[in-house]
Amino acid sequence: MLDIKGVKNKTMTINKNYLNLKDSYLFSTIAKRVREYSSENPTAKIIRMGIGDVTLPLTASVVSAMAKATAEMGEVANFKGYGDEQGYGFLRDAVKGYYSQKSVEINADEIFISDGAKSDIANVLDIFGLDNTVAIPNPVYPVYVDTNIMAGRKIVYMDGFEANNFLPMPDKKLKADIIYLCSPNNPTGAVYTKEQLTEWVDYANKNNAVILFDSAYEAFVQDKNLPTSIYQIKGAKTCAIEFCSLSKTAGFTGTRCGYTVVPKDLEREGKSLRNLWLRRQTTKFNGVPYIVQKGAEAVFSAQGQIEVNKNISYYMQNASLIAATLKDLGVWFCGAANAPYIWLKAPKGLDSWQLFDKLLTSANVVGTPGSGFGSNGEGYFRLSAFGNNELTAEAMERIKKAKMF
Amino acid sequence: MLDIKGVKNKTMTINKNYLNLKDSYLFSTIAKRVREYSSENPTAKIIRMGIGDVTLPLTASVVSAMAKATAEMGEVANFKGYGDEQGYGFLRDAVKGYYSQKSVEINADEIFISDGAKSDIANVLDIFGLDNTVAIPNPVYPVYVDTNIMAGRKIVYMDGFEANNFLPMPDKKLKADIIYLCSPNNPTGAVYTKEQLTEWVDYANKNNAVILFDSAYEAFVQDKNLPTSIYQIKGAKTCAIEFCSLSKTAGFTGTRCGYTVVPKDLEREGKSLRNLWLRRQTTKFNGVPYIVQKGAEAVFSAQGQIEVNKNISYYMQNASLIAATLKDLGVWFCGAANAPYIWLKAPKGLDSWQLFDKLLTSANVVGTPGSGFGSNGEGYFRLSAFGNNELTAEAMERIKKAKMF
Repeated sequence: MLDIKGVKNKTMTINKNYLNLKDSYLFSTIAKRVREYSSENPTAKIIRMGIGDVTLPLTASVVSAMAKATAEMGEVANFKGYGDEQGYGFLRDAVKGYYSQKSVEINADEIFISDGAKSDIANVLDIFGLDNTVAIPNPVYPVYVDTNIMAGRKIVYMDGFEANNFLPMPDKKLKADIIYLCSPNNPTGAVYTKEQLTEWVDYANKNNAVILFDSAYEAFVQDKNLPTSIYQIKGAKTCAIEFCSLSKTAGFTGTRCGYTVVPKDLEREGKSLRNLWLRRQTTKFNGVPYIVQKGAEAVFSAQGQIEVNKNISYYMQNASLIAATLKDLGVWFCGAANAPYIWLKAPKGLDSWQLFDKLLTSANVVGTPGSGFGSNGEGYFRLSAFGNNELTAEAMERIKKAKMF
Repeated sequence: MLDIKGVKNKTMTINKNYLNLKDSYLFSTIAKRVREYSSENPTAKIIRMGIGDVTLPLTASVVSAMAKATAEMGEVANFKGYGDEQGYGFLRDAVKGYYSQKSVEINADEIFISDGAKSDIANVLDIFGLDNTVAIPNPVYPVYVDTNIMAGRKIVYMDGFEANNFLPMPDKKLKADIIYLCSPNNPTGAVYTKEQLTEWVDYANKNNAVILFDSAYEAFVQDKNLPTSIYQIKGAKTCAIEFCSLSKTAGFTGTRCGYTVVPKDLEREGKSLRNLWLRRQTTKFNGVPYIVQKGAEAVFSAQGQIEVNKNISYYMQNASLIAATLKDLGVWFCGAANAPYIWLKAPKGLDSWQLFDKLLTSANVVGTPGSGFGSNGEGYFRLSAFGNNELTAEAMERIKKAKMF
């Protein structure tokens, strides 16, 4: 574009950071390979243990609460228009009560109801400066990396490997302002202990960093000694934001509800991060559907908890079976005990995608190549415990028979 | 923070652009004033014509579709986990069909289902460079301004005033890369003609700008000659993104569903904005609840359209009555004919908040001070047509009696 004097003007620009993103998304590549294999082998009965999506339906309490809420929305007297962007009080109180059971005291106005952890984990970056350095475990859930590439922030990777059970710890070399932790971890299923999280909280408080703690899989922790919230660690309220979700806990992957906790004590540069996040949400978000919030409230009821725990036990049976099978086969793995994911080592000489292809073609089992979660995931592989019990058992039989390990 | 040599290091930063935002949000101030007045005058029967929220419940087709979808979510065979981030095909096809009725051909893969226009209007900025200059009408929906302040973009304002019926047009001085247009307009209810939008489209194509076209109120347009989509204008597909919502059309303010159109022909710096937006959404969003998408699909069915049009007619009766009353009183106003908002001029000597107080205290009617939408809104006032017919009629009687105009 030339101005009236023939000088080239600045013109409309796109966000060029997007050009630094890798083109393909892990799960779309998997879907494509499976589709191709299926079309070439139409009789193959494929068992999907790849994408971490639930398979059990919503529980009776949740369906009943949503049915009631749906009917209300059709009645003049009970219709609900705009709700509070932060979420209805009834749901924030329910979440507060859930935290109380973990011996964590959170105020309802520190809780933000979201349409899922993914949105909030991505959007929370809005309140931080672009000049912060971000520390991200490798391997990890790809959203942490991609959202920071989009913003152009400097990323440093924290190495996960067998020796640290894929649970990186702070070291003296680490200089980071924003630190992502995911525990129980996606993809590795590894869980930080209280002692380990205490080291992280101490690091963050000492270095003025903020921990973005993804606890989406907290409900799968079976060991009572393991933390299910970073706020169970002393000092966390001055350095951590916690993201949680009902996606896996209560089968909400297609219903969309989560919650984010930003403690009032969390300040940076003299400003309350809770207030900045509230401003972000009131400006750029209009809340979660009333119907969905009523369903989410039911998850936290006594009956709802019984129901979702039953479903979690169902999935954890898969995790146990997968773990037992891998032990029998002498395969190295982590996860399974306190998480719905099993992170296993590929047989010598196979990379992640080679194992993917071998599992697909020789056992008709679909998993997720570890390399899709970062370079340190190369040579590893994720299996999900979210399948049907019978199909998971069949998949394990097929893997044994295929003798690939 | 000092490093080992005692040198001050850079430390964690917040997004300092947030500090440039004004502290208080328009509607919270209104709510506070009304609350205070009510507590001092507990018998006052207050009629609310302030915030633009609907009052009629969801229609029968929508409730029935959502009830069915809720039941499905409780059944193993029909349960839905993660959906496509862009939205289910059934809903994108329904939106495509809706556009066809407007003689606009849009492909389903150019349509993105959202949780409301507000989120997408805010989030779409992510795909644009921070160095773009943004042109925003004054007065206008405050979200356009605040989201760009948060990103630190340069904002230029396009003046709306009585002489241009609060519909700013491009002029030779305008240098902008991103241009917000809202038609039918919030807060003024004014609607651009096809000729006016053609000028804007021509400006954008000539200057490599992108128009962000907010058509959330398109369903309220009664005059068949007025455009209800920018894509009814030749050339718009190479310069405009359109945001629409079921919030007002179908009473979805508490149910949350909208849609955004990014045409494949829209490129900047050689990149497809549709592909950039897809990448943004797949990375930072996980789609709209299945149940809500089934409700939204019902809106576009033949029966759903009959139902929502009946509700729109109901609201437009209010708009007509308010317009007739203001005409009788000799008050200048715009809007009402093709929009659920009426934008009126305060009596001489009163500013927007003074009129707010006068209406509240002498007629017990709540409206929205025009100054809340920008400096050019000072001395003006917004009334919403989303109330009950009887209450709106009573409000008009009270305004006549109060003799404030």
